[in-house]
Amino acid sequence: MISEKMRPLIENNSVIRVMFEEGKRLASIYGAENVFDFSLGNPNVPAPKEVEQAIYDTLRAEDSCFVHGYMSNAGYEDVRETVARSLNARFGTGFHQNNILMTVGAASGLNVILKTILNPGDEVVVFAPYFVEYGNYVRNYDGQLVVISPDTSTFQPNLEELSQRITAKTKAVIINTPNNPTGVIYSDETLRQMAQVLENRQKELGTEIVLISDEPYRELAYDGAEVPYVTKYYANTVVCYSYSKSLSLPGERIGYLVIPDEMADSQAVFTAATIANRVLGCVNAPSLMQRVIKRCIEMGAQVNLAAYEENRNLLYGGLKKLGFSCIRPEGAFYLFVKSPVEDDKAFCAQAQKHNLLFVPGSSFACPGYVRLAYCVSREQIERSLPAFARLAEDYGL
Amino acid sequence: MISEKMRPLIENNSVIRVMFEEGKRLASIYGAENVFDFSLGNPNVPAPKEVEQAIYDTLRAEDSCFVHGYMSNAGYEDVRETVARSLNARFGTGFHQNNILMTVGAASGLNVILKTILNPGDEVVVFAPYFVEYGNYVRNYDGQLVVISPDTSTFQPNLEELSQRITAKTKAVIINTPNNPTGVIYSDETLRQMAQVLENRQKELGTEIVLISDEPYRELAYDGAEVPYVTKYYANTVVCYSYSKSLSLPGERIGYLVIPDEMADSQAVFTAATIANRVLGCVNAPSLMQRVIKRCIEMGAQVNLAAYEENRNLLYGGLKKLGFSCIRPEGAFYLFVKSPVEDDKAFCAQAQKHNLLFVPGSSFACPGYVRLAYCVSREQIERSLPAFARLAEDYGL
Repeated sequence: MISEKMRPLIENNSVIRVMFEEGKRLASIYGAENVFDFSLGNPNVPAPKEVEQAIYDTLRAEDSCFVHGYMSNAGYEDVRETVARSLNARFGTGFHQNNILMTVGAASGLNVILKTILNPGDEVVVFAPYFVEYGNYVRNYDGQLVVISPDTSTFQPNLEELSQRITAKTKAVIINTPNNPTGVIYSDETLRQMAQVLENRQKELGTEIVLISDEPYRELAYDGAEVPYVTKYYANTVVCYSYSKSLSLPGERIGYLVIPDEMADSQAVFTAATIANRVLGCVNAPSLMQRVIKRCIEMGAQVNLAAYEENRNLLYGGLKKLGFSCIRPEGAFYLFVKSPVEDDKAFCAQAQKHNLLFVPGSSFACPGYVRLAYCVSREQIERSLPAFARLAEDYGL
Repeated sequence: MISEKMRPLIENNSVIRVMFEEGKRLASIYGAENVFDFSLGNPNVPAPKEVEQAIYDTLRAEDSCFVHGYMSNAGYEDVRETVARSLNARFGTGFHQNNILMTVGAASGLNVILKTILNPGDEVVVFAPYFVEYGNYVRNYDGQLVVISPDTSTFQPNLEELSQRITAKTKAVIINTPNNPTGVIYSDETLRQMAQVLENRQKELGTEIVLISDEPYRELAYDGAEVPYVTKYYANTVVCYSYSKSLSLPGERIGYLVIPDEMADSQAVFTAATIANRVLGCVNAPSLMQRVIKRCIEMGAQVNLAAYEENRNLLYGGLKKLGFSCIRPEGAFYLFVKSPVEDDKAFCAQAQKHNLLFVPGSSFACPGYVRLAYCVSREQIERSLPAFARLAEDYGL
């Protein structure tokens, strides 16, 4: 019954999602408070009160058929205009509503833009460690994933290898900053150099290469770190955004694509992406949540970082003290910890004996590491530290 | 920039959606009250008050991180269990939560099941007139659409042709009852015979053929007409459902797939479909709306038909009196009217001169007809009748 393309996906069902189900199973046996699930990027910070208020206000002030009805497949014009203006005010860009396409989260946005541009055999470059779903999204459209090896000293992108691996078949490069799973942010300097590499190679090859910037963690930057706006560096940039993290709405599936005027064939790409959004079956981003975004546009730009920052400091500090090795994350809510043994899956299995759940780095094409999501309660981190201490003992740290 | 697969889609951008944009344009010129837009299936009946109440109750009673957070990709277990039990109570089926996969509307459900089962070159049979997007969904997975010619006397499916057109490559048959665009309902007898055809051909060919029943109009049946539950006729049935029409929530993108135990490889299909839902980028159906469905499960089963029925009678009666020819719809909210001239697009263009917007039948692979969606206000129908009268005069009716 199952298509040939889906069969390997069943066999390699997302480790992250399997872990999520495993966490629920363990919690039912040992009690939720005794299971330390660091596997899933499901924000534990509740949506700001303003979201709830915006839902009430929308239902009270706006017509039901309008709020819950079909709109243009790209989204409500006023919502898209509000998003454009907010980006312009924050980043000095010059977007208008026809640069903004509301999507069913960033994952759907990635599918929409990949469907829009990929021909079978086209290559899409990613930097290890990368979110494993990128591979599935690219294969949905018969693209080929090209993986740049990780620089494990800094986890910044290896631009020399990027330049070498770009071919006439390279259609897109996906970046993710602040990064899942490492927490690093690509600096102004990094983006400047990356843009130069892409422009040079475009010119040499006579091709267009789309830089897809997947930015669900944009607002999660600590210590005042700047997260540069990528469209300002490189014309052929498409931004995939989601409110999953900034407004703590991952289940609601609300985000947008930015397709700037500067991009080659910009208008045709926008039209095609709008159609792709429709024919992939999304039709449009959920309507009530679009209305909510309009009312909460300021909230989405100023996420309350305190809780995540406290968690980062507590977990990073705790693990370093126990002898674990990892770089200090600048953004997002992940810690990418070096496995004390080469086999990161074995390390995860050992951790599970202490009811500690995290995801092996091999799921991010970066074996020898594990990812811990610290978007959990402070209490979970505090209660988990003795379990981490026992895990450290297991490895003689 | 645009992929080869998307290019023809830009050229043939959905006539329905273009019409929707045209309606907005005309309304801005002539005033909304002077434009008679019958082009889009956007319910004008507002969502029942219970939906709004369910949103309030959910936000008050349930934890924010739970309501807006990630859940299993198939949807919340309790919501799926509630849907299964409701179907069992209404139709005497025996579903459980692992037969129900919550989706981003029925369009996404169709994509999910097609991605799950289709290999390139597999054939998917549809009956003309059919919803034109089926072709795009099938092509997303490199399937081949096989169109059974319409029986324009009854608009019931031509089962003899179905039997002849099924080959070893036939992977699925899509039906839609109550039907868009004709309003007919497939009877118990029709479904019994169709199941027999499929079973016979399966046996002869040694294949499995999936019957995909697209049912967003299930509750919209007039005059007490029964809409039989398709899984009871044929084991390899998958149901695609949406609350777009029954709860007037088309913009919210909430529906489900039913993958029954009786289906071949049922569990593997359910697992693969859950993964397809994830990798297509939907991840999960919008979370708040899932919670709402649980609270409104009874409402979704007993849609208030009165408004649509009144519209049907008014428009059908009015058009018949003016000399137009069409069959009386038993369900859904569409009238499929015979064009007075062979060229249905020319007829639509002529109608547009009277600010009457409807969709040519050629968009449903059934030229010579036009579709009128009567999910509009009673006032619009009343005000539009003089315009229809002028249109009838144009053709000497």
